[in-house]
Amino acid sequence: MSKKLTSRQDNYSNWYNELVGMADLAEHSEVRGCMVIKPHGYAIWEKMQRALDDMFKETGHVNAYFPLFIPKSYFSREASHVEGFAKECAVVTHYRLKNDPVTGEIVVDEDAKLEEELIVRPTSETIIWNTYKGWIQSYRDLPLLINQWANVVRWEMRTRLFLRTAEFLWQEGHTAHATKAEAITEAEKMLDVYATFAEEWMAMPVIKGVKTASERFAGALETYCIEAMMQDGKALQAGTSHFLGQNFAKAFDVKFVTSEGKEEFVWATSWGVSTRLMGALIMTHSDDNGLVLPPKLATIQVVCVPIYRDMEQLDAIRNKFAPLITSLKEAGIRVKFDDDDKRKPGWKFAEYEMKGVPVRIAMGPRDLENNTVELARRDTLEKMNVSFDDTADLVKKLMEEIQQNLFDKALALREANTHSADTWEEFVDILGHKQGFVWAHWDGTAETEEIIKQKTKATIRCIPLNNTQVVGKCIYSGNPSGQRVIFAKAY
Amino acid sequence: MSKKLTSRQDNYSNWYNELVGMADLAEHSEVRGCMVIKPHGYAIWEKMQRALDDMFKETGHVNAYFPLFIPKSYFSREASHVEGFAKECAVVTHYRLKNDPVTGEIVVDEDAKLEEELIVRPTSETIIWNTYKGWIQSYRDLPLLINQWANVVRWEMRTRLFLRTAEFLWQEGHTAHATKAEAITEAEKMLDVYATFAEEWMAMPVIKGVKTASERFAGALETYCIEAMMQDGKALQAGTSHFLGQNFAKAFDVKFVTSEGKEEFVWATSWGVSTRLMGALIMTHSDDNGLVLPPKLATIQVVCVPIYRDMEQLDAIRNKFAPLITSLKEAGIRVKFDDDDKRKPGWKFAEYEMKGVPVRIAMGPRDLENNTVELARRDTLEKMNVSFDDTADLVKKLMEEIQQNLFDKALALREANTHSADTWEEFVDILGHKQGFVWAHWDGTAETEEIIKQKTKATIRCIPLNNTQVVGKCIYSGNPSGQRVIFAKAY
Repeated sequence: MSKKLTSRQDNYSNWYNELVGMADLAEHSEVRGCMVIKPHGYAIWEKMQRALDDMFKETGHVNAYFPLFIPKSYFSREASHVEGFAKECAVVTHYRLKNDPVTGEIVVDEDAKLEEELIVRPTSETIIWNTYKGWIQSYRDLPLLINQWANVVRWEMRTRLFLRTAEFLWQEGHTAHATKAEAITEAEKMLDVYATFAEEWMAMPVIKGVKTASERFAGALETYCIEAMMQDGKALQAGTSHFLGQNFAKAFDVKFVTSEGKEEFVWATSWGVSTRLMGALIMTHSDDNGLVLPPKLATIQVVCVPIYRDMEQLDAIRNKFAPLITSLKEAGIRVKFDDDDKRKPGWKFAEYEMKGVPVRIAMGPRDLENNTVELARRDTLEKMNVSFDDTADLVKKLMEEIQQNLFDKALALREANTHSADTWEEFVDILGHKQGFVWAHWDGTAETEEIIKQKTKATIRCIPLNNTQVVGKCIYSGNPSGQRVIFAKAY
Repeated sequence: MSKKLTSRQDNYSNWYNELVGMADLAEHSEVRGCMVIKPHGYAIWEKMQRALDDMFKETGHVNAYFPLFIPKSYFSREASHVEGFAKECAVVTHYRLKNDPVTGEIVVDEDAKLEEELIVRPTSETIIWNTYKGWIQSYRDLPLLINQWANVVRWEMRTRLFLRTAEFLWQEGHTAHATKAEAITEAEKMLDVYATFAEEWMAMPVIKGVKTASERFAGALETYCIEAMMQDGKALQAGTSHFLGQNFAKAFDVKFVTSEGKEEFVWATSWGVSTRLMGALIMTHSDDNGLVLPPKLATIQVVCVPIYRDMEQLDAIRNKFAPLITSLKEAGIRVKFDDDDKRKPGWKFAEYEMKGVPVRIAMGPRDLENNTVELARRDTLEKMNVSFDDTADLVKKLMEEIQQNLFDKALALREANTHSADTWEEFVDILGHKQGFVWAHWDGTAETEEIIKQKTKATIRCIPLNNTQVVGKCIYSGNPSGQRVIFAKAY
C-alpha cells in the first residue's frame, strides 16, 4: 500500500485503472477482454445484487435461468436485433478436442463440428421468447414477470474494467403482457426501480429519460434509461428498460387467447443493469486516496484498528471495544475489529482508506487512558477525537450522514457541471472546456444527432421524462425544436 | 393439472421426468443438452444457494468471479486434468459473424478466427491457478479461501434434467494453503459443510467417504464425497471436495515465501456442488402426487386456500385469516393466501400438491361458522380438521416435524436398502433384485473395481470415513481385504 494513486487531476483514466486494482476490485485476465472480479469487488456486487433482487421480488418478479448458448438462427428472426447483437460475439463451432495423432498436442476435433453454430448469449431475448412460446397460451398465463442473473459476452476490442468487457455479469428482466399499456407501465416501473436503487443505495443521482431512436436497444420501440454524471463530467448510462412492443412475440410466434377468446400477440419488455454499475459507483465517489463507498454498499462499514505495543495492550483495547462492537452489530452495522498481528496500524489505515471503508475507529494506549477514540470519516477525510462513550451513537448517525453527504456531493457536482447552450459556438465551447451535461435544442432528426456526435463526440444522453416543453431552435441546424435534450460525452 | 404422473412403481424414470416438468422445475431447451430452470425450480435453487453461501462465509470464505473462457493450452499444463476435462467441451473458435455476400445469411466470419481456441469452462482450476500466481507471493497472502458461483459446460450426449446436462450451475471453491495439513483440513471441513447442508436443509441423509483412485477428480490426490440413496435404491453423488496437493501450483508455478524465507509450492483444494442437488432433492422425497419439499427449502411453506361462493364469503375468510398470516410471517414462515379468482380450489389443491408445498390450510363457509380449518400435510398426505385458534401453533410445530419426518423416512429407506454381501453370488443377487447399497470386501485394485463395474454396473461409491477395519476376502477376487466398501448402481 505504499504506492500512491495517480491523481484524478493528472490523469483520470489512469487514476481509475489503478484504483480498481489497488482496491482489490478487479483485474484483467489473460483471456482477452475478460476480467477477474476480485473478492472485494465481488462482495460489493453481491450487495448490489441482493438489494436489486429484493426490489425485483417486491415488484412481483421471479428468477429463472435460460441457456448460455443461443443457436445462430434465432438471431435472424428479429431483423434489427441481429444487426445489433449477432456480429461481435463468441461463436462455438465444435464440441470436442482430441490429441493430434502426429504432434500429440490438444487440437480441435474436426469430426465434432456442430451442425449449427452456437452463440454465447450477448442478451437473451431470442432464447427466452422462443421458450415463452411454450409457456403462454392463455391470458391466465400472463403477465410473466421473469428475471435472470447471468453472464453475457459481447466481443469488445477495447476494454476497460467494469465499464466495457467482453464478458460481464448482469441481470436481464424479460416480461410478457396482455396489453400494450401494461407493458409500458412495466418498462417505466423498472426504470423507477433502477433510479431508486441508484440514488438510495449507490448515492448516485440519475436523470430518467428515453433514448433517441438511434440509441435504442436493437429490437425496442422505446428505450428508457438512467444517466449519471461521473466526476470528470462524462455521462454514464447506468441502466436501461425497453418497451419491445410485439416485435419478439411476432418473431417467435408467441400468441395468447384473451378472456374474450381472441388470439393476440404478446407484449414485451426487457430491462437490465450490469457490473458496469461498479464502474459508475467508483467514478461517482472515489478520491485520490482510493475508493469511497456509500455505507449501504460497503462490505465493512466500520473498521476498528487497535494501536498497541504488546499483547497486554491489545487485550485491553479488545476488551474495551467488545461492547461497542456488540452494540453496532445489534444495530445492523457491519463492523470489523482488525487484530491481525502480521500488519502494522499504518498499513491498515492506508488499506482501509484505499478500500473505501466509511468509518475508521482507532484506539491507542493514550486513548485507552483518556476513554477516547480517533474517528475518521472516509468521505470527508475528517478526523475527530471523541469520547468512547459517544462512539456508538455517533457511528450510527454517521451511517446515514455519509450516505446522504455522498449523494449531495454528487448532485452538487452534477449541477455545477450542467449547462445550457443556445448557440453552436457556446455548445462547442462548453464541450471543449467545461465538460458536463449540456441542455440544448435539437431538431429531432437522426442526421443532426449524427453530425453533432462526429463534430463534438457528444451524444444525446436522453430526452428527460416529463421534460419541459419549450420552443427553440436546434443548436446545429437552427430548425424548430419543442424541447431541450441532454448532450454529453459518455462512457 | 388434470394429467396424472406416472407412478414410481410403473416407471421411475418417467415419473422423474414428468414431475420435473409438471412441478414447474425445469425443461429441456431447444439447445442440445441445455436446460431451462423454471421459476419454481430456480427459487428452490436460490434457497440452496443462500444457505450454502452463508455456510461458506461462516467458514471464512469469500466469493469472486473468474472468466467463462479458458485458453485451450491451460488444460495441457496438468497432465491428468486435461484427460478428464478438455475433451468433451464447447470450443469457441471465432469472434464474429457476418452477412454472407451471396446468400445474405448470417455466417461465421472466417477472418475472425481466434489464434488460440477458447474452452467454455468445464471447471475452473486452471484459470484460477493461473490467476493465483499473481496473488500469492508470501505466507501473508495465504490462505486464499475463495468460492465462485458460476455456470459450467461439459458436453454430454445423454442428458437428464438437473442430473446430467451440458450446461449446469454450481459453486466451485478454490483454496490455497501454506501447508499440506491445512489443505487436507480444508477439504474435510468443506465435506462436512456439504454433509450438514444435505442433512439439515435437504433432509437427505448422506454417507461421507473418499473415492477410489479411479473415481477421483482429474488432478486430485484425494476426492472426498457425500453419497445419498435415491428412492429407487440407486446412489447419487451429491458433493465432492478435493485435496489437490501441489499439482496445480506446480502446473502454474505458484510459489510463496514462508515466514522463514524459504520458497515453496502452494497446497490446494477445490470443492463443488451443483444444480444436480435439485435432482437429489426431488428423488429423495417426492411421491406419486408430485414434489415433496422439506420446509426449509420450500419457497411457499404454507398455502391458505379459501373456498367461497361469492366475494362476501371470500372477504370474510380473508379477514379471518389476516391475523393468522401475520402471526406466521412474524414467526418467519413463508405463507401465501391464494385468492386468485381465475382458478378453482380443486385446481389449487392439485397445483400446490404437485409443487410440494408442505402445509395446506383450507377454509370454506362451514369452517368459518365452526371456527375450524382443514389442514393437510404434504409429506404424509394426512388431513386434519383443527380449531382455527390452534392453527398457528400447529403450523409452527409442523415446520420442524415435517423437516424431521422427511429425514427419518429417507434414512429408514436407506437402512432398509443397505445390505452386506460375502459371496459373489449374494452380491450379484442383491444388485439384480433388491437394489440399494451393498457393503462388501474389495481387494483394493483398480482391475477388480473395473471388472465388477462391467459385470454388475455397480461402482464403489466410497470408502466411508472412519470405516470399521475388519479383515475379509474380496467379493470378486477372493484376495485379502481390510475393510468393506460401499457398492451401488448410481446416477
